Amino acid sequence: MLLLHRAVVLGLRQACRLKCTHSRLCIQAAQDSPHIYTKEEVKSHSSPETRIWVTLGSEVFDVTEFVDLHPGGPSKLMLAAGGPLEPFWALYAVHNQSHVREILAQYKIGELSPEDQAPSTLKSSDPFADDPIRHPALKVNSQRPFNAEPPPELLTENYITPNPLFFTRNHLPVPNLDPDTYRLHIIGPPGGQSLSLSLSDLHQFPKHEITATLQCAGNRRSEMNQVKEVRGLEWSTGAISTARWAGARLCDVLAKAGHQLRDTEAHVCFEGLDSDPTGTAYGASIPLARAMDPEAEVLLAYEMNGQPLPRDHGFPVRVVVPGVVGARHVKWLGKVSVEPEESYSHWQRRDYKGFSPSVDWDSVDFDSAPSIQELPVQSAITEPKDGEIVESGEVTIKGYAWSGGGRAVIRVDVSLDGGLTWQVAELDGEKQCPQKAWAWRLWRLQATVPPGKKELNIVCKAVDDSYNVQPDTVAPIWNLRGVLSNAWHRVHVHVAP
Amino acid sequence: MLLLHRAVVLGLRQACRLKCTHSRLCIQAAQDSPHIYTKEEVKSHSSPETRIWVTLGSEVFDVTEFVDLHPGGPSKLMLAAGGPLEPFWALYAVHNQSHVREILAQYKIGELSPEDQAPSTLKSSDPFADDPIRHPALKVNSQRPFNAEPPPELLTENYITPNPLFFTRNHLPVPNLDPDTYRLHIIGPPGGQSLSLSLSDLHQFPKHEITATLQCAGNRRSEMNQVKEVRGLEWSTGAISTARWAGARLCDVLAKAGHQLRDTEAHVCFEGLDSDPTGTAYGASIPLARAMDPEAEVLLAYEMNGQPLPRDHGFPVRVVVPGVVGARHVKWLGKVSVEPEESYSHWQRRDYKGFSPSVDWDSVDFDSAPSIQELPVQSAITEPKDGEIVESGEVTIKGYAWSGGGRAVIRVDVSLDGGLTWQVAELDGEKQCPQKAWAWRLWRLQATVPPGKKELNIVCKAVDDSYNVQPDTVAPIWNLRGVLSNAWHRVHVHVAP
Repeated sequence: MLLLHRAVVLGLRQACRLKCTHSRLCIQAAQDSPHIYTKEEVKSHSSPETRIWVTLGSEVFDVTEFVDLHPGGPSKLMLAAGGPLEPFWALYAVHNQSHVREILAQYKIGELSPEDQAPSTLKSSDPFADDPIRHPALKVNSQRPFNAEPPPELLTENYITPNPLFFTRNHLPVPNLDPDTYRLHIIGPPGGQSLSLSLSDLHQFPKHEITATLQCAGNRRSEMNQVKEVRGLEWSTGAISTARWAGARLCDVLAKAGHQLRDTEAHVCFEGLDSDPTGTAYGASIPLARAMDPEAEVLLAYEMNGQPLPRDHGFPVRVVVPGVVGARHVKWLGKVSVEPEESYSHWQRRDYKGFSPSVDWDSVDFDSAPSIQELPVQSAITEPKDGEIVESGEVTIKGYAWSGGGRAVIRVDVSLDGGLTWQVAELDGEKQCPQKAWAWRLWRLQATVPPGKKELNIVCKAVDDSYNVQPDTVAPIWNLRGVLSNAWHRVHVHVAP
Repeated sequence: MLLLHRAVVLGLRQACRLKCTHSRLCIQAAQDSPHIYTKEEVKSHSSPETRIWVTLGSEVFDVTEFVDLHPGGPSKLMLAAGGPLEPFWALYAVHNQSHVREILAQYKIGELSPEDQAPSTLKSSDPFADDPIRHPALKVNSQRPFNAEPPPELLTENYITPNPLFFTRNHLPVPNLDPDTYRLHIIGPPGGQSLSLSLSDLHQFPKHEITATLQCAGNRRSEMNQVKEVRGLEWSTGAISTARWAGARLCDVLAKAGHQLRDTEAHVCFEGLDSDPTGTAYGASIPLARAMDPEAEVLLAYEMNGQPLPRDHGFPVRVVVPGVVGARHVKWLGKVSVEPEESYSHWQRRDYKGFSPSVDWDSVDFDSAPSIQELPVQSAITEPKDGEIVESGEVTIKGYAWSGGGRAVIRVDVSLDGGLTWQVAELDGEKQCPQKAWAWRLWRLQATVPPGKKELNIVCKAVDDSYNVQPDTVAPIWNLRGVLSNAWHRVHVHVAP
């Protein structure tokens, strides 16, 4: 396909040159003596109106005419508009071929100014100054602390989310931890022994690997916000991602410290090494019963997709609690203790809970609701996007579906008419163990656009193996923190005449 | 309250006597020589229009004037209209007081004919001839096989459903088993040993007790039928009940036979001793992982609420699989075996599965959906009833809520305006272990009827501790067998002017 595509491109490009005066002039200029552009200038060329520029190394390219010819689709190339190609090419190895560079070379218009060729640095007085560099494709909901999600069209491009695109939910600045001096403290029970584990100590436990999806309680909060204002980050459908995690099982480490499953009310409390200016660390907890159950596969993870954890995802060690809300997967893990009650942290007791739509900030009693652990069944459409124009004839609809507690998604129903009639989507993804379906299913439906239709109200809803389903509408599950937003997902599209 | 009530009754009765000519004449007649009535005559007096008669022992009473004075409410007394009081008095011990009989005596109008004082018998050529006598309050959906549910006003009267009112779901005639010769066959694995257990052998295993709710997959099917015709018994909201079960844990019995948890795809298959004319027994299965998990508390139960199992509920032994659909709780258990796949029975593979609303009897592929095991979150309103007239001022709304898989109900929202605004109901019921909330919660809301309202659209919806919720409407979860009907429950009532 790339070869065929290349021939088409080369032919089309020659035709374009005759028409595209600006592009031609630039190429001409580049041949004489390279034109120098600043990063800011490149950034200002990020739409068809301003033309679309990208950089690779020190070179600047005007790819306006190539966008519609991009084999991965125009929307994917547009993610790089106004910036460097490297972060995207690093994810999609197909670009590492000489003819791809050859095609690109034809669009060169100049060079980056020397001072813009080095990575930018942040001011050191900023507590976030030491935060890592992030992937430019991420849609940033909050810069400090950093919270960002992948765009929908990349989210379901891969069953395993590439690390740089994995949604990031930080509550505090990212700590910069030295793996050589890192220690994880496990508090032992009376009669047991407390442990201070180095990273290599943790590697001595049997290595356990799982594929698990993480979802933020606030995923799809933006839809709740449309019903009535909620407090929280404006997540779209991307606060969910899937990785292959590896590490020691929490039950093995707890057993080593002498813990046994005795009191079913007890919780295992986790403390992060990230902290606010007062020194308060991020904290959360899960029931001891889950922590001690080997089948629950709770990990002290040190690898994500075969790599050491990226800093944004908890380097060197984070908790992974499959089937449970992201907020309990404590990152930059410093301390583990077993307590008679759940964690007293703000994020356990005063946040991440669901309430009736009738409860507001004057009437809320945080003690009246349990902390979120397992999440309800969820699905969303990632393609097409809301407001998009689709071709008449056939339309491809794609998305993801997942459920908490290891419950497998067994079916996704898709409607083109707002929920009056339904079709069953095809499910992709790895086969999973019964009761341990920790990872999402991606799904796809190739549907016929009913002739004469000018618009489609596309809806999806998933069913899990407990036969729980998503609720029809958002308002009856609205809650003041905008969590647990799992109503049918709806996108409205226009059909090209 | 009863004493106060008695004074009111006695006063009112004297006033009534002056007005109620028919009643007075009957009492007069009874004093002279008792009037003799047949059972059929009594049965024909079951509404205010025909007057309301009941029997106790050999005596016949006209209680028309007492109905509105009944301390338990008129609707409860009306359940006995036209028939005997004994089955109801047996459930509600409050009637066993001399002054209750004294009140009743005032309403005596005659005696039952001698031939109607003995219980009726069925013809012996009928395969169902040997079925047990049932409680007259049950609403019968099918006589042969017997399928019946308690009326809503009795269903949530007790947290533990009295045995005679427990919903009954039989697929075949009820076998009449001799407890002395009864044997339960447990097939052992290669290298293990098969067991043939008498009832007293089963009593040798540690006795384990749990409170668990059973729900039929078809509960609330009648609401699906209103959307579009489905095949199945017309259950209302009563195909659900709660009992205290006692028996041996299945895991202990399987371990004794030498079974271990090895193959996670394996199922434990159950066969009943009920069979159709071809000799095919009822059968079903559950995953071996659940059967072998001591925390899942799967029982081979021989007691129900402290009594030997009633014949309709599986005497002498049935399976109880807490959190799982009723269809897997095989009654009159004859055989248990571990198989590499789930049961090949009709009820496992060709029934009790959920499908998309788009699937009809021409397109259905039963292999495409998993058999129902854990059930989704459920709730229903039992008081007031649809179409009822409620007083203005305050209204009491009552109901039940339950979820499968041991997930606890954490909240029930109730709306008086069809779902626009919500109030949180009070939850009653036993405290349950986390992850093992096998029993329902009864709930209640005392709400103010908005002044001037002539009707109310009362709605309830429950949330469980995985924060799964019920879907808003029935049509999008409609399926051809009418199972898994768990949309918001709605009743429409009129407000008395």
